[in-house]
Amino acid sequence: MAISTRPPSGMRDFMPEELAHRKFVAATIAQVYEKYGFVQIETPSIENLSTLLGKYGDEGDQLLFRILHRRDKLARALENDQVEEKDLGDLGLRYDLTVPLARVIANYPDLPRFFKRCQIQPVWRADRPGKGRFREFLQCDVDITGTKSLIAEAEVCSAVAEVFCQLGFTNFKIHLNHRQLLKCLIKAAGIEIEKESTTLVAVDKLDKIEVAGVKKELNERGIEDQQVDKLLGLIIRPENLDEKQELERLRNLLKEVPEAATFIDELLSLTSLLDQTAAAGRYCIDTSLARGLGYYTGPIFEIRSPEFSGSIGGGGRYDGLIGMFRGKDLPAVGFSIGFERLVLILEERGLLNKKIAGPDLMLCHFDDVADPEVVAAAKAFRDQGIKTEIYPETPKLGKQISYAESVGARWVAILGAAEAASRQISIKNLTSGEQQVLGWREAARFIAGKL
Amino acid sequence: MAISTRPPSGMRDFMPEELAHRKFVAATIAQVYEKYGFVQIETPSIENLSTLLGKYGDEGDQLLFRILHRRDKLARALENDQVEEKDLGDLGLRYDLTVPLARVIANYPDLPRFFKRCQIQPVWRADRPGKGRFREFLQCDVDITGTKSLIAEAEVCSAVAEVFCQLGFTNFKIHLNHRQLLKCLIKAAGIEIEKESTTLVAVDKLDKIEVAGVKKELNERGIEDQQVDKLLGLIIRPENLDEKQELERLRNLLKEVPEAATFIDELLSLTSLLDQTAAAGRYCIDTSLARGLGYYTGPIFEIRSPEFSGSIGGGGRYDGLIGMFRGKDLPAVGFSIGFERLVLILEERGLLNKKIAGPDLMLCHFDDVADPEVVAAAKAFRDQGIKTEIYPETPKLGKQISYAESVGARWVAILGAAEAASRQISIKNLTSGEQQVLGWREAARFIAGKL
Repeated sequence: MAISTRPPSGMRDFMPEELAHRKFVAATIAQVYEKYGFVQIETPSIENLSTLLGKYGDEGDQLLFRILHRRDKLARALENDQVEEKDLGDLGLRYDLTVPLARVIANYPDLPRFFKRCQIQPVWRADRPGKGRFREFLQCDVDITGTKSLIAEAEVCSAVAEVFCQLGFTNFKIHLNHRQLLKCLIKAAGIEIEKESTTLVAVDKLDKIEVAGVKKELNERGIEDQQVDKLLGLIIRPENLDEKQELERLRNLLKEVPEAATFIDELLSLTSLLDQTAAAGRYCIDTSLARGLGYYTGPIFEIRSPEFSGSIGGGGRYDGLIGMFRGKDLPAVGFSIGFERLVLILEERGLLNKKIAGPDLMLCHFDDVADPEVVAAAKAFRDQGIKTEIYPETPKLGKQISYAESVGARWVAILGAAEAASRQISIKNLTSGEQQVLGWREAARFIAGKL
Repeated sequence: MAISTRPPSGMRDFMPEELAHRKFVAATIAQVYEKYGFVQIETPSIENLSTLLGKYGDEGDQLLFRILHRRDKLARALENDQVEEKDLGDLGLRYDLTVPLARVIANYPDLPRFFKRCQIQPVWRADRPGKGRFREFLQCDVDITGTKSLIAEAEVCSAVAEVFCQLGFTNFKIHLNHRQLLKCLIKAAGIEIEKESTTLVAVDKLDKIEVAGVKKELNERGIEDQQVDKLLGLIIRPENLDEKQELERLRNLLKEVPEAATFIDELLSLTSLLDQTAAAGRYCIDTSLARGLGYYTGPIFEIRSPEFSGSIGGGGRYDGLIGMFRGKDLPAVGFSIGFERLVLILEERGLLNKKIAGPDLMLCHFDDVADPEVVAAAKAFRDQGIKTEIYPETPKLGKQISYAESVGARWVAILGAAEAASRQISIKNLTSGEQQVLGWREAARFIAGKL
């Protein structure tokens, strides 16, 4: 009886070519982040549920993969009459990389005061799988802790912009907003503060369901027509304004909410910083941007492209989260790249070269050559750094060579008994057909020079 | 109320320096394996329990981390009167990399006929944590499928030997045995075939509990004195025999078990192959080697060092496992490196340089410089590939510089208003104290030239 051989729902096998693409993208990201002074860490896949629960909202808690207790602990849990989910495990798979960072900051008091950490690891969410949405997927996060300086915001946005440019991706914008400014907009529209979250959920859909849709949804969520019109008048940006003009427009409209000036000034300063970085010309002020996670406290960002609905990454300032672990607040700013969507777009646009994952050289041999000779010849090529595969059996030469072609080998080397005796070998370039007989080391050096 | 900030039992955070060591070791392994023509794949962390269960013996099944059902499925499971472990989930975390490979081979029929795959990923086992034993740990596997040729055995052993040499590790031996030869030894000792497993468990402890201990344990397991003496006479290797002599000794002693000749010949051929590779002089015949996993069918290997009790990796031929997924047998050979133990030994021996993970340059600035100028100066350095960190605030210069020293920066650049106006900057080497004022781009080029 055969067992199912497919990966579980929402999970993927990465075969050599696809994995090579992913590794290339991850390495590019890591290399840019390093240039910005970020250092890489890794945390365990499994965290205590007490670390994870209550950080992502009820919806997030539902999406956690929980680990079942084992042996005695499980037996004891099952003895109860009314067994509940919470009795069955106290561990879960990592849901994002931000909460583990907050735990790490609290756990290692000797970290640098301004800890600039980069982390590229998978996370797990028991979400409904869909295009570009998986249950195990890679996240690439950068965060800076320990400072309220806007330089931190500028650093993470600039690093992300440079990553996208480096990957050949030009058609993107970093949307900027401010969590506190959103509060001011809601206040200015005369909407009660208790209705803030429900209002933001609707507003956040502006690029998907457009003005009419948002109006309808706001009404359904109990916002009155007059408030809706006032709010949308604030949020909908007139055409032909540049970023600084848009901020001035907001400043004028928000005169009756005095605290708004501070947050507009912050965004204005941030734009002046970004103008000096790789993010220059690649950002826009977007007051409809809300970002779901409750823990943001200051500027928020999201990276979008007209080629892909939804975001390809986002982040913001969260000055309260680390305090939940540390007992004492610590300011922090982060940006997370949606790796899976990024790779999908790069692949669709042909920006990832279909690199052949095959060997440089396939070593073919006749059955009159002793295997130790074959292995010794392979060593001569490998010693020159040539990716060498030995054809492990001795069918007819044609079969060996067509196999070499099928796996994308660039060269074949053919060893017969006469050649082996004099430590010679015939090498053939599979693209040009060029063929010659050389000594083993000569042949290895010749091919190494051509790679 | 503060939440616990430590990682769960048996799990680890890897901070920058330790992670850099691990990445260096993993990259070295991947690079050597590539030279041998192996291609890298990755499989999901989560597999169906039907894939995992029954492949690792009862003990292995007990060590699986199972994932709890969610929502409706969980509710339905808990409605039963007699809830059992098997009702509570159908997914589990990967226990090793071999079973996922077998699943992959069966799932992708278009893979190369001789699939040489390398895989470096974490696995999870709910084992009791101890020194060098964790619940989440990295495995590095190479496997060759599709051939019964002994070249496959030679290739994996040679690749592993080259990895260890490349890492500066010389004091190791690959112990070689043969699963079928073990059967012959047991037969020759007059032990009933039903007692094979229990006998091998005792024999495998020879290097830990020595001859007296093994004798005692064999007796306890119901092996008679005469059988024990015969068996130990076969297995205990006289001193001063080389590998080929040891094989001849076994050949003579096993005359009455005719099938043994085939397996001795295989080991003899394997040694002739290994003599032509990086494993030359680094292997030994060891008939006490048993290896726990039931799925081995031919030669088996284990890499050991006198500096570390137990193995640092192992493998062998398993011609039956893939058939469990594919319905049709496919021969295969693999070798798995015990990454965690390897890193531990390399660290203890000082073979991993304590690389400083700090930035190349810390950009310090006075408070009379506008932040956009600071960000612009940082860009000039980063554009030259210099790992640059901006001190995000403006306390006294001394404080900024001592912070730069504390995080291991090699240079500081100091920006004041007068310098910023003329796009100049003062740079200082923190090791030599050497200091000069240059234009931004000049300074960046100067430092880039020194890295």
